[in-house]
Amino acid sequence: MTFAPPDFTTPALAAAPDAVFVPAPADGVLPEGFFSTTNLPTYVRIGGAWRVPREPRMDAALVLDAAGDLWSREGRRVRAGERVAIGRAEDGSEGILVHTDAFRAPSGSGGEFKFMTSEVSREKPIDYAQMARLLIEERARGGYPIWVTGPALVHSRARADMVWFIANGFVGALLAGNAVAVHDIEASIFGTTLGMSGSGEATSGGHGLHMRAINRVRAAGSIAAAVAQGVITDGIMHACVRHRVPFVLTGSIRDDGPLPDVITDSAAGQEAMRAHTVRATMAILIATALHAIAAGNMLPAFVTDADGTLRELATICVDSSEFVVSKLKDRGTHQAFGVVTNAQDFMHILRLYVEREMGAGGGPAGAASPRAASVVA
Amino acid sequence: MTFAPPDFTTPALAAAPDAVFVPAPADGVLPEGFFSTTNLPTYVRIGGAWRVPREPRMDAALVLDAAGDLWSREGRRVRAGERVAIGRAEDGSEGILVHTDAFRAPSGSGGEFKFMTSEVSREKPIDYAQMARLLIEERARGGYPIWVTGPALVHSRARADMVWFIANGFVGALLAGNAVAVHDIEASIFGTTLGMSGSGEATSGGHGLHMRAINRVRAAGSIAAAVAQGVITDGIMHACVRHRVPFVLTGSIRDDGPLPDVITDSAAGQEAMRAHTVRATMAILIATALHAIAAGNMLPAFVTDADGTLRELATICVDSSEFVVSKLKDRGTHQAFGVVTNAQDFMHILRLYVEREMGAGGGPAGAASPRAASVVA
Amino acid sequence: MTFAPPDFTTPALAAAPDAVFVPAPADGVLPEGFFSTTNLPTYVRIGGAWRVPREPRMDAALVLDAAGDLWSREGRRVRAGERVAIGRAEDGSEGILVHTDAFRAPSGSGGEFKFMTSEVSREKPIDYAQMARLLIEERARGGYPIWVTGPALVHSRARADMVWFIANGFVGALLAGNAVAVHDIEASIFGTTLGMSGSGEATSGGHGLHMRAINRVRAAGSIAAAVAQGVITDGIMHACVRHRVPFVLTGSIRDDGPLPDVITDSAAGQEAMRAHTVRATMAILIATALHAIAAGNMLPAFVTDADGTLRELATICVDSSEFVVSKLKDRGTHQAFGVVTNAQDFMHILRLYVEREMGAGGGPAGAASPRAASVVA
Amino acid sequence: MTFAPPDFTTPALAAAPDAVFVPAPADGVLPEGFFSTTNLPTYVRIGGAWRVPREPRMDAALVLDAAGDLWSREGRRVRAGERVAIGRAEDGSEGILVHTDAFRAPSGSGGEFKFMTSEVSREKPIDYAQMARLLIEERARGGYPIWVTGPALVHSRARADMVWFIANGFVGALLAGNAVAVHDIEASIFGTTLGMSGSGEATSGGHGLHMRAINRVRAAGSIAAAVAQGVITDGIMHACVRHRVPFVLTGSIRDDGPLPDVITDSAAGQEAMRAHTVRATMAILIATALHAIAAGNMLPAFVTDADGTLRELATICVDSSEFVVSKLKDRGTHQAFGVVTNAQDFMHILRLYVEREMGAGGGPAGAASPRAASVVA
Repeated sequence: MTFAPPDFTTPALAAAPDAVFVPAPADGVLPEGFFSTTNLPTYVRIGGAWRVPREPRMDAALVLDAAGDLWSREGRRVRAGERVAIGRAEDGSEGILVHTDAFRAPSGSGGEFKFMTSEVSREKPIDYAQMARLLIEERARGGYPIWVTGPALVHSRARADMVWFIANGFVGALLAGNAVAVHDIEASIFGTTLGMSGSGEATSGGHGLHMRAINRVRAAGSIAAAVAQGVITDGIMHACVRHRVPFVLTGSIRDDGPLPDVITDSAAGQEAMRAHTVRATMAILIATALHAIAAGNMLPAFVTDADGTLRELATICVDSSEFVVSKLKDRGTHQAFGVVTNAQDFMHILRLYVEREMGAGGGPAGAASPRAASVVA
Repeated sequence: MTFAPPDFTTPALAAAPDAVFVPAPADGVLPEGFFSTTNLPTYVRIGGAWRVPREPRMDAALVLDAAGDLWSREGRRVRAGERVAIGRAEDGSEGILVHTDAFRAPSGSGGEFKFMTSEVSREKPIDYAQMARLLIEERARGGYPIWVTGPALVHSRARADMVWFIANGFVGALLAGNAVAVHDIEASIFGTTLGMSGSGEATSGGHGLHMRAINRVRAAGSIAAAVAQGVITDGIMHACVRHRVPFVLTGSIRDDGPLPDVITDSAAGQEAMRAHTVRATMAILIATALHAIAAGNMLPAFVTDADGTLRELATICVDSSEFVVSKLKDRGTHQAFGVVTNAQDFMHILRLYVEREMGAGGGPAGAASPRAASVVA
Repeated sequence: MTFAPPDFTTPALAAAPDAVFVPAPADGVLPEGFFSTTNLPTYVRIGGAWRVPREPRMDAALVLDAAGDLWSREGRRVRAGERVAIGRAEDGSEGILVHTDAFRAPSGSGGEFKFMTSEVSREKPIDYAQMARLLIEERARGGYPIWVTGPALVHSRARADMVWFIANGFVGALLAGNAVAVHDIEASIFGTTLGMSGSGEATSGGHGLHMRAINRVRAAGSIAAAVAQGVITDGIMHACVRHRVPFVLTGSIRDDGPLPDVITDSAAGQEAMRAHTVRATMAILIATALHAIAAGNMLPAFVTDADGTLRELATICVDSSEFVVSKLKDRGTHQAFGVVTNAQDFMHILRLYVEREMGAGGGPAGAASPRAASVVA
Repeated sequence: MTFAPPDFTTPALAAAPDAVFVPAPADGVLPEGFFSTTNLPTYVRIGGAWRVPREPRMDAALVLDAAGDLWSREGRRVRAGERVAIGRAEDGSEGILVHTDAFRAPSGSGGEFKFMTSEVSREKPIDYAQMARLLIEERARGGYPIWVTGPALVHSRARADMVWFIANGFVGALLAGNAVAVHDIEASIFGTTLGMSGSGEATSGGHGLHMRAINRVRAAGSIAAAVAQGVITDGIMHACVRHRVPFVLTGSIRDDGPLPDVITDSAAGQEAMRAHTVRATMAILIATALHAIAAGNMLPAFVTDADGTLRELATICVDSSEFVVSKLKDRGTHQAFGVVTNAQDFMHILRLYVEREMGAGGGPAGAASPRAASVVA
């Protein structure tokens, strides 16, 4: 979406004061009145110049470090004495400007009587061709699309399609929880997920199979080791290992095991995720409220290109009900485009469209991407 | 909600032409280019004066009858040769003005970054006290609240609460389908609904009980006759008969029976409903997508008080999921306020609050209403 | 599914009495104690022989007509004096046997601890290949699959896929409501559905387009006439007319218009539907609670082949939530197999799999079916 | 529910061998073929006697420690060399018996045609009186009901009702995540939740309020300290502190902050939860999939009373959709009773019924419980 930068020459902005910074009173504690960030483009006046913070995200503080660099930083990471911006005004009058209209269409007349104006509905068409083109463009330009997925992805047989996206260079990083990897690995070892066969039947003795899968990986030491030892022979985690696509598995309170790769500390898990969200140029969130909101919290609503221009960060949120998408938006990820469908079907059709678009001039599958070519020997 | 009438002295409106009317080409067929109505306040310029149509509703034509009266009328009811307004512009430039901003809050800055901005969500608080006060006010002023309900109301034990609202004068008319009455009457005769006991257990032989209930009413000739004969001894339909609260039961393709009172023709059913929607001063739509949208289609978004002033028609839509409310809004009933909860719980708490509010000065239950007092001897 | 007929030589069944029939007391009124049917194979002992009723369905009476034919018949169609079976026992002890275990798997040990035992869940895999094979087999054997659909089918761009199924001989009959046809015809004439563009945007002035579409068909006189006159040039209804696939449009209380082909009387609508349900050899119910339950009420759970053998009537129910499928089962259509997904995606993948299966030896598309070849010149 | 213990005198069980134990190969790694536990009563033959493990739960191993005590223990907690039971058979033939029918009704004929047989549906009645009696009984007998809640509880104004249950001795322990406490504390300090007012409006500047609330508690050092310092003056966390009701807040990847009391490591969080689940005599799971499944994983399906008898552990799961309850059951918590409604309404009516039942002979509120009386001065 096109982006019109703010006009800093308006009298109000031209006359705006410098932002005020005060020291943090203690480790992990912000000064009262701290400025609480959003995911929108934000400009901070320092020494008369408007500057943008590094690693922008919502629900963070603005920290000016000793070297003079400006950061968006979570409160728990701020150390006593670090300089933190103060203020509540978002219009620049206290030296901080949030560009709320950056990516929003002007609301127009607004009042016209219309049908079908809801933001998210299963009754809205899904434009797979457009999503496919976005993915292909991202791959072509060397973008970094992050995929954030829930276990339904594996559970309902979308596994082969996810493997295809990984193998063909469309996945910058995979962010998920223990269950995605457990189901995927159970499927590789035993052909079931939570003991359910590929045709949806609960199998006898099946309730223990995910525990046996976890135990084998724990015995191997790590997912990569289990792949190397031939314990895991196919599937999503196997594809990540083989194609060197980074993954982050963060722990949750409902985890069995967990697998050895899971980061059980949630603060550490967020750090690991942030290493990818700060690089993200697109986000695909599938069948997970927990991880979608986690990623949404960390993602800016925009991508900063190499030349400094900003564009909207395409964010697709797929779920079986309108509720998860609305919930995500209600937590500030307004840029999310909601797709209300079954994860399995979404993956299958999206792959189909990507294949079609590539066949129609997108070039040979995988060839365009440096990532796609790298397979561990 | 306060209402600011349009300013007809603006140059554009002062200079607006009269609306153009052309004859309908055939019975039930409108002229090409007919003006298609909305549920918002609408003004039609005729002989230089701005007039409002009678029986306003959406999806209708504007008909100027031989007597010079102006009506909103469904296309199927228009006869060949009747004068029908032409035009698409809703800004008065073709003589027809739709007052789209009548009840809408000005959208304000709009762009501010906020959480929790979704229109309908189970995460929003439900203000039962306000709804209770609305109902009590309606009763006090002699309003005409219509209740439009689905079978879940009966199925899940909200039956006693609905009876209470009927008996205490809070129900102007009940609009529902065959199933509501069938479940209610099965509950009166057999103590079950679709063979399910009051504690939720499927009973042996229960699958035929709704058919036996229907058959007994068919034998009696009507619901009122079955009440008179002692076949039906309690419940919602019984209360309607006893308290002379009118009800309209309209048929649907999934009906068993149906009961003798059911209007099986959908066009005739809409006529019967419209006799109540044109009088409605409030609408409570509970646990029904079908009938809620049917009523929403017929209801204006506003009430015209005796002195000609307009106010918003309070419309409450209760359903277990956000989807039904969004769907209703997507069909133009934008004024609907969504309550996402279980029908049984809604009824129970709403009654509790009404009782509390009445106890706190609302006057003795039922005494304020002419309707409440009338019980068939 | 294999079917083991009841063993009538067991002592209990061998000694069973003839069923008792008593005359109906009035038109449309059944005698007290009437036997209320299910959708399962049912055997009635008459003159010492076990006979099956014609036109089996649930929620009906068993009528022995003057010619000695035995029928399942809705109470409202029974005339005074007609002989109606009496009894509640379903085990043959009163001369009526319901074969409840006909198509059910033996429940086995039952008690084993298992995961993933829910009947319907978005977490279960969807076996499109199997559904595709069923459709192809039905076409090959000259079966009569009925498709029962809601408006979401059209609304969300599954229209082209539905046209494909019609054109290629996979649709015996289409059973739907006014809205499906209205949306489809609006799409043909104006390129929108309820004023929403194909990419999901509400268009200016769009709220009246469905009314304009209806009006044009009313002017033409019927859908077929509108096709003949070039008013409707593509889409689902166009395909039905062109390929002589019968359709039944039944009215509902929320209908706009309606279109001239709509049967507004619900009893007459059920008669029209029954003409197809009694022939049905498969049922595909998509994105409609109302029509799915209506069809489920009328459909036997089994198909009677020409040689008298019975097999389960494959019934697929597609909806965005588990609730509709559970509701359908809770109304007795236990044979329904639930697919929890978006209607648009379902149609797209199902078509893809049918194309694949046909390409893999299913024979040239359409060639196998007498229906597929017939196109109105 | 009554419980019939297994009959160990049957020939098969009398002749059963002792269970086989083999040493764990490494810390946190189980031997291949380990027995994977369920949440049902389990008997292990050791030295010819049938014994029950301590701290029963699903997805664990059976460990015989050096002192000869038998435990259900998660694999990650098993140390190298500890003796772990081997086997897959659950019928005693390998020395381990899972009593699958302990609390299940015999499935009976099974085949009868019935309506309304789904396990979980919004169409089923909710028996608040029974749930109220259960809670009152638990309090009277000194039971330990654990409440596991999601943020919707606070978000939608059920806060006052939750405080009432805490203050009146109905809460043994509160298990939740960071968000419940953050919303609750934001409500205490600012009167909003995620910036949304009590009437559901998004407030200007509101998006930062939860961060400010977190920061104040971080400055105070803990929730208890913030209560002591007067930072938190009412609400759920305040009530827990004042009434000495223990709470466990476990971290998740989507947490803001988090609050200082949150256990960010998921393995440590599970340990903290288990300290309460092993004591639980009842479980109420409200508006949370994540924590409900986490608790369900740890909870046995039964309570072992002081005299060694077993009874079913009453487990109530409240959610707006059938899906969460089905998902919980699909993960093995089959004993869960599903209530499909809004959390706010559930809390309000449940409290009302508890008050009524107590008024009707339940004794003075709180007086019966040692817990209820303790308030921090």
